Amino acid sequence: MADKIPPPTDQLAAVPLDNAGASSSTVHKTWSPSRTRIRSILGRPNGGAGLAGQKVQISGWVKKGREQGKGTFAFLEVNDGSCAANLQVKVDASASDLSKLVTTGTSLTIDSCLKIPPQGKATKQKIELSAEKVIDVGTVDQHGKTPYPIPKTKLTLEYLRDHTNFRARTTTMAAVTRIRHKICLAAHVFCDKHDICYIHTPIITTSDCEGAGEMFQVTTLINQSDKLETGLPRKHGKIDYSQDFFARQAYLTVSGQLHAETYACSMGDVYTFGPTFQAEKSHTSRHLAEFWMVEVELAFAGVEEAMNCCLDDMELMKNVDEACIHRLQMVALTSFERVTHTKAITLLEEAVAKGKKFENQVERRMDLASEHERHLTEVLYKKPVIVYNYPKEIKAFYMRLNDDGETVAAFDVLVPKVGELIGGSQREERMDVLMKRMEEKGLPIKEYEWYIDLRRHGTVKHSGFGLGLERMLLFATGMDNIRDVIPFPRYPGRADL
Amino acid sequence: MADKIPPPTDQLAAVPLDNAGASSSTVHKTWSPSRTRIRSILGRPNGGAGLAGQKVQISGWVKKGREQGKGTFAFLEVNDGSCAANLQVKVDASASDLSKLVTTGTSLTIDSCLKIPPQGKATKQKIELSAEKVIDVGTVDQHGKTPYPIPKTKLTLEYLRDHTNFRARTTTMAAVTRIRHKICLAAHVFCDKHDICYIHTPIITTSDCEGAGEMFQVTTLINQSDKLETGLPRKHGKIDYSQDFFARQAYLTVSGQLHAETYACSMGDVYTFGPTFQAEKSHTSRHLAEFWMVEVELAFAGVEEAMNCCLDDMELMKNVDEACIHRLQMVALTSFERVTHTKAITLLEEAVAKGKKFENQVERRMDLASEHERHLTEVLYKKPVIVYNYPKEIKAFYMRLNDDGETVAAFDVLVPKVGELIGGSQREERMDVLMKRMEEKGLPIKEYEWYIDLRRHGTVKHSGFGLGLERMLLFATGMDNIRDVIPFPRYPGRADL
Repeated sequence: MADKIPPPTDQLAAVPLDNAGASSSTVHKTWSPSRTRIRSILGRPNGGAGLAGQKVQISGWVKKGREQGKGTFAFLEVNDGSCAANLQVKVDASASDLSKLVTTGTSLTIDSCLKIPPQGKATKQKIELSAEKVIDVGTVDQHGKTPYPIPKTKLTLEYLRDHTNFRARTTTMAAVTRIRHKICLAAHVFCDKHDICYIHTPIITTSDCEGAGEMFQVTTLINQSDKLETGLPRKHGKIDYSQDFFARQAYLTVSGQLHAETYACSMGDVYTFGPTFQAEKSHTSRHLAEFWMVEVELAFAGVEEAMNCCLDDMELMKNVDEACIHRLQMVALTSFERVTHTKAITLLEEAVAKGKKFENQVERRMDLASEHERHLTEVLYKKPVIVYNYPKEIKAFYMRLNDDGETVAAFDVLVPKVGELIGGSQREERMDVLMKRMEEKGLPIKEYEWYIDLRRHGTVKHSGFGLGLERMLLFATGMDNIRDVIPFPRYPGRADL
Repeated sequence: MADKIPPPTDQLAAVPLDNAGASSSTVHKTWSPSRTRIRSILGRPNGGAGLAGQKVQISGWVKKGREQGKGTFAFLEVNDGSCAANLQVKVDASASDLSKLVTTGTSLTIDSCLKIPPQGKATKQKIELSAEKVIDVGTVDQHGKTPYPIPKTKLTLEYLRDHTNFRARTTTMAAVTRIRHKICLAAHVFCDKHDICYIHTPIITTSDCEGAGEMFQVTTLINQSDKLETGLPRKHGKIDYSQDFFARQAYLTVSGQLHAETYACSMGDVYTFGPTFQAEKSHTSRHLAEFWMVEVELAFAGVEEAMNCCLDDMELMKNVDEACIHRLQMVALTSFERVTHTKAITLLEEAVAKGKKFENQVERRMDLASEHERHLTEVLYKKPVIVYNYPKEIKAFYMRLNDDGETVAAFDVLVPKVGELIGGSQREERMDVLMKRMEEKGLPIKEYEWYIDLRRHGTVKHSGFGLGLERMLLFATGMDNIRDVIPFPRYPGRADL
């Protein structure tokens, strides 16, 4: 297993023992879990040594175990998911059947006293649990039809993708899970602090946001037709969607942006945070069929304000975890380079002139390929880069046309290692310009009347951006494959569980 | 429009003007919106009177406007979505074309001084804006092909459902939106405080959690087949799902619980908060095809702990909004009645004996219908009721069998007006009992091996519950129809936008 993320033990703040990690002043009146989380022991100053003599009940799974002293006692490294570090537990043979306890993956609940380990031993533990009583044990079935897939040997991330039901028991996947939690929370708290209101845009949609891209279809027609064995219902040769659940063709959303705009044009600043979907058969380490996205939409704001807001949002992320702090500090402390698309192309052309080879040829009005983005941010600037003012023909219809009539007020934030992390733009608030752009793109005006109406009645300047949660996580954790930063990855041919 | 929610102006905490409502000590370095939110003016003590003389820039939409003084000035009630209250703006004819400003729905940005309105006027306003300068105006097109759907007359909620792109401009829908935001945030913060880790369970799933219920199918087969006009691909007469995107049949999730259990059995306490789907053709005011759910899964916890945790979670909700506080205080301050299913049935039988008529006959081992739930909570106890220990045959296979061999450790939280708000249970952690229950229910063991394996290797006692966000909102806001507490409701025949 790629163990890139060091245990955060030393950096953990001290947490009171009596409420299982709750760090606020809210007194817990009714719900008080009987177990003490290992983080609230080892996360204390001096590795929890000050707790010697205290009685605690801990629960977790054995990471490593070994019998010693000719079977008179056993040492267990126990993890409960609350932190990367394990608590060392010493169990006497009198307390339990040791041979059942030492197998990796065994669960147990122990009620005993914390004590300082004997000096002179080659141990880094400042505190250990000396088990007088083992309350509960869940064994590992080593001889059944499905062996335990997470032994203590190192496992590849590829292997773990075949065991999504257990892979969070590994150090790396558990750390990614905790970082994901904190990044999600940081996004919600950031938005709330700035009065940006959470909107649940729909997952099932009858609009196609981008006017492009493969979408998943959502239907109840097939099950019906499969039972009837008559094929899909048809009318005049075409599929009769009037018989489908929503009485029309429906899809999984590719972006909540257009819907978020309706609320921005009512409530002011809003954001969405939800799953989005793309049915492209992409097999890269940067794409998923189902992924999570934060989309912010700011009313009465131009593209400059949107750029600044998204930088602030990223800065907030640095509170996430000590393990990824240096990577995020670069974002927080470095001033982002800002270049126009025109300048970016010029820089790439200069690189080509100096002998740099790209797989995709550099052309004046092209969209940047991943290799171009990475060259800008990793080689030329060695820091995050915002590219803005893209040619209108390579960007979506809703992006605001600049005064030059040729570019739109769009921007992408590129970061080393990941490439595009955030995409945003000012939205076209002028009804006539919007409709002309839709005609140019060949979009069916009639289906977008609800969107055009936002410009017809009390239109406002507004801007927004979207941040891909999993790409943010790749950047924050240093993981290489996007399939390892989401609990249950979906990609072509795979939707386990 | 049903205007049930009073403006929360008086209860709003004072908020510094200079950072648009941010209430923390985090200093905003780069992003500082130029506009001041109306909430941060009217939410101050004495309705903002202390701000007289300060220059501000506000942006919003006209709720009501009228020309006065023979067209020499106009009064506008302006709302920007930040609170229910409107800011009164006085505009001189010299500053703008008044006839364009007074139409409901017009957007505007004004840069001017706050001042105390003249005494003796019949106004409740403690402060008003005297507009010297109107920076931006977005007019309402009263003569175009689609008229503005939100005039200042009262509108029914049914009518507004046909205008989801504009309905957040009404007082009621905007209030529901703000309450929804705060409830979501409260759930995230509650879980974080208690070290409950956020897990994104998958939306697209190949498992059927309940082994029952209509599910939406997710596919890319139809578009392919429609282009080819050859019908769906078949193999041995059946649809050939090996050609579908995930190489197998896939659905929209009905619950993230089973997936959440995999993480609870690794990380400890976890929660999901995401969209869930049901394809039943239900037309009631309590059902949606797409709705949001919080699901909590606690490792090393019995059913009693799960019950207590979910009550605590609800108590947290009382911080949501002053407008719904008295309703939520009932939850926070009242001790919930706890009755077994057996006792609940006895109580209902007694009610029938006394002459109470139910549409659904009361039987010993039946599931409670909505009318029964409401009778218990609204008539018999007049407070929230937890019903627990349900007969095993009416509950899901994963609920833990009690020692009586007849009931399972399940509970439902029933509240007045809404009925079932939360459902939870201890999960069956004993592999042999689980498999026997699955056989009784006729479930395909093979498809659930990944779930059974959690019991095979290091099993732990664990429990959880699910809270329907929209039902919580019905309860908190007093709204009657679930379609009005979600921005874009999906139900049979309707998936607007």
